[in-house]
Amino acid sequence: MNTQTTPRGGTLPHVVIIGGGFGGLNAAQALRRAPVRITLLDARNFHLFQPLLYQVATGGLSPANIAAPLRAILKNQTNVQVLLARVENINAAEKYLTLNDGSHLSYDILIVAVGMRQHYFGNDHWERYAPGLKTIEDATNIRRRVLFAFEAAERESDPERVRELLTFVVVGAGPTGVELAGAIGEIANYTLRNNFRNIDPTQARVLLVEGADRVLPTYPPDLSARAAESLAKLGVTVRLNTFVRGLSADTVTLKSGDQEEIVRAQTTLWSTGVRAATFADALAAATGAPQDSAARLMVQPDLTLPAFPEIFVIGDAAHYPDKDGKPLPGVAQVAIQQAKYAARLIKARLRGDTGSPKPFRYTDLGSMATIGRAAAVANLRGLHIHGLLGWLIWLFVHLMALVKFQNRLLVLIQWAWSYFTRNRAARLITGDILPAPLPTPQAQHSPQPEAHKQPTA
Amino acid sequence: MNTQTTPRGGTLPHVVIIGGGFGGLNAAQALRRAPVRITLLDARNFHLFQPLLYQVATGGLSPANIAAPLRAILKNQTNVQVLLARVENINAAEKYLTLNDGSHLSYDILIVAVGMRQHYFGNDHWERYAPGLKTIEDATNIRRRVLFAFEAAERESDPERVRELLTFVVVGAGPTGVELAGAIGEIANYTLRNNFRNIDPTQARVLLVEGADRVLPTYPPDLSARAAESLAKLGVTVRLNTFVRGLSADTVTLKSGDQEEIVRAQTTLWSTGVRAATFADALAAATGAPQDSAARLMVQPDLTLPAFPEIFVIGDAAHYPDKDGKPLPGVAQVAIQQAKYAARLIKARLRGDTGSPKPFRYTDLGSMATIGRAAAVANLRGLHIHGLLGWLIWLFVHLMALVKFQNRLLVLIQWAWSYFTRNRAARLITGDILPAPLPTPQAQHSPQPEAHKQPTA
Repeated sequence: MNTQTTPRGGTLPHVVIIGGGFGGLNAAQALRRAPVRITLLDARNFHLFQPLLYQVATGGLSPANIAAPLRAILKNQTNVQVLLARVENINAAEKYLTLNDGSHLSYDILIVAVGMRQHYFGNDHWERYAPGLKTIEDATNIRRRVLFAFEAAERESDPERVRELLTFVVVGAGPTGVELAGAIGEIANYTLRNNFRNIDPTQARVLLVEGADRVLPTYPPDLSARAAESLAKLGVTVRLNTFVRGLSADTVTLKSGDQEEIVRAQTTLWSTGVRAATFADALAAATGAPQDSAARLMVQPDLTLPAFPEIFVIGDAAHYPDKDGKPLPGVAQVAIQQAKYAARLIKARLRGDTGSPKPFRYTDLGSMATIGRAAAVANLRGLHIHGLLGWLIWLFVHLMALVKFQNRLLVLIQWAWSYFTRNRAARLITGDILPAPLPTPQAQHSPQPEAHKQPTA
Repeated sequence: MNTQTTPRGGTLPHVVIIGGGFGGLNAAQALRRAPVRITLLDARNFHLFQPLLYQVATGGLSPANIAAPLRAILKNQTNVQVLLARVENINAAEKYLTLNDGSHLSYDILIVAVGMRQHYFGNDHWERYAPGLKTIEDATNIRRRVLFAFEAAERESDPERVRELLTFVVVGAGPTGVELAGAIGEIANYTLRNNFRNIDPTQARVLLVEGADRVLPTYPPDLSARAAESLAKLGVTVRLNTFVRGLSADTVTLKSGDQEEIVRAQTTLWSTGVRAATFADALAAATGAPQDSAARLMVQPDLTLPAFPEIFVIGDAAHYPDKDGKPLPGVAQVAIQQAKYAARLIKARLRGDTGSPKPFRYTDLGSMATIGRAAAVANLRGLHIHGLLGWLIWLFVHLMALVKFQNRLLVLIQWAWSYFTRNRAARLITGDILPAPLPTPQAQHSPQPEAHKQPTA
């Protein structure tokens, strides 16, 4: 027990950080030399590079390529202790948290960086039919569903059912939805070429459903247009001004204007609607802090909660209005910049500097989304880039951002490989393996002509 | 629908292969140019490079590094159709299989390469406490248990419980058991160094329990001795002539001679005792073929079943006696050589060559096992090699064997990396995340001195 490295003992102020995402991890690192002892709490033992999660969901990368153990990242920062724990509740008056094992953890300063979770607008049962993409498990679950749909189609004789199995609906055309739809289009048109004998994967239909009047609604219109072109090239059908009215195991009910349409689809993916993690509600209840419609906490100009200067909320779970009053987007850059602002403010206070701080200001470094192979759109401070150049910039930025990860090199090689071969290394169906019997009764027909149906099957 | 590439249609004899492991995959490939149509059945969509599975279980490699989609491997072999299906039963008289969806699949020639599964000698409930290492899910499950034990220990204040959490028992000192124990020893002594604040990972105890009088009992005694030395260097305690009498969630009852000992251990791994996959029993029932004590099918000198010349059994599920009457070991080489023998025999028959064939003969190319970093033992046709040279040979042989895999290069780099840094990239705890509350009541003490126990926790 190497006591000299423990962040506890001594009377240094105790900073507790909830969440090991971009916000929490960067806050811990920004306090590297601060006279504090830090406890970083996360329910997972790794930091996840969320922007590339869709690559895991589509078999392009392995989970370990985009995740690194928090302990490994922070092992040399001796004022941090990482604890694998879920925070169940908070007592803001007595300044302690209740963890999932029932124990209490006191704090002097609290940084809440809990992020968002999938939201189904009051239709939580939809989650079974249309998984979202927030965790590693979501990604491998989506990977299993997409790949298994092709496998089931290969065994299916009823053309109607084959069409249903090969129809993929992605709900929401934000960056994640666009990237998911593009990747599935690429899998169908290139990756699986010649892999099957009964079906032609290029016959797969990929529908991208968006309620707004263009894809990537938060991007400049010209880039939305470019993205739409790239999606069309990959065989993705975009449905704009369209909303999901209903979901079942193999249907999606779409509503556009006043006409409804029922699409038969085995696989539906949810990339719209997020809500602050549940702890945000507990925090609001304990502090009386207001929440917005997505349960995000309305923070003050210094990112703290009203009447609780020791509680910071940063990243996706914080509602901080930009110049024109809209909340800042839920992207890594916002979380990272807020983490550094909070760390600076904490250090200033520890120096005894009690003057009222300059409010947090977000510097938009730009946003980008990739569509399949060698195509991306980027909006870099007003400069609009698309196509191969956009993709190269996207690749560079993300590889550099992965710099903390020992396996950045692996990711580069894996990408180079899939770029040249359009192969996807991580096409594994894991988890519960075979639904027996297969999804629907029709599926019980054997694809083998010489096969004779079992009387009682 | 590219009918010209379908293995069906036409009247070519239909060869059905059950299992996409070393035996099944090599049989399909050896029949590349044969005038047959082949259907390869597997419940998984990928071929697994089993010899490296322990690397996934210990966070050294990602699942995708050692698995490749069967369709991708066989996509250019147009006389093969891959079907994702589990075989439930066989009608050997009418020559058809019943699949998991109830459909029937007829065959002219059947190659059974179903492999082995974990066996608990009539104590199947032990599986909950001591998982085996046969599938990708087994590997990620073991990885989760091992890593989570360290995480729980970091949060634990009761020294007794910490000791229990940091005690790892590996049952069975065959190659897999030796490799697992060595890798865990390495994780505790090197990989996790400085990762924790409350515990010292090097205090972890790794027990390797073996019923025989030496580790690697199937190896020459001098190599067993070398392996034991390497294990000792990694802090692994070997218990010979010792058997497991009982298992619970946190205890292992060991019996050596006539004294019993109860070891308190949170994590026990099972790498002894295998049994032929369940289909072997169905096949025996349908054909009257005899099975040995491990449920393997006793095959004839030409690897077929008595009275069923069209049914071949190859690989781990086949019992084929070597010169001194012992069954051939369950290693990849045996499966591969038997696959090629069966393919040759099938092609000869198709040529109308009905003379009684030369019996199958196994050429032992040697066997090797690796113990942690840069140490291995190899028995190459009587030549005994150990230490770094053995490890380099082991590395070379396995990398070459991975040649079919697009990500061989990734594996090499990942190994090079972990060799030089002793880091392990894939240290992710996935699956059901946090048992809440933690394993035992003691675990509810908070590691934080300033924490006050919850009255009703």
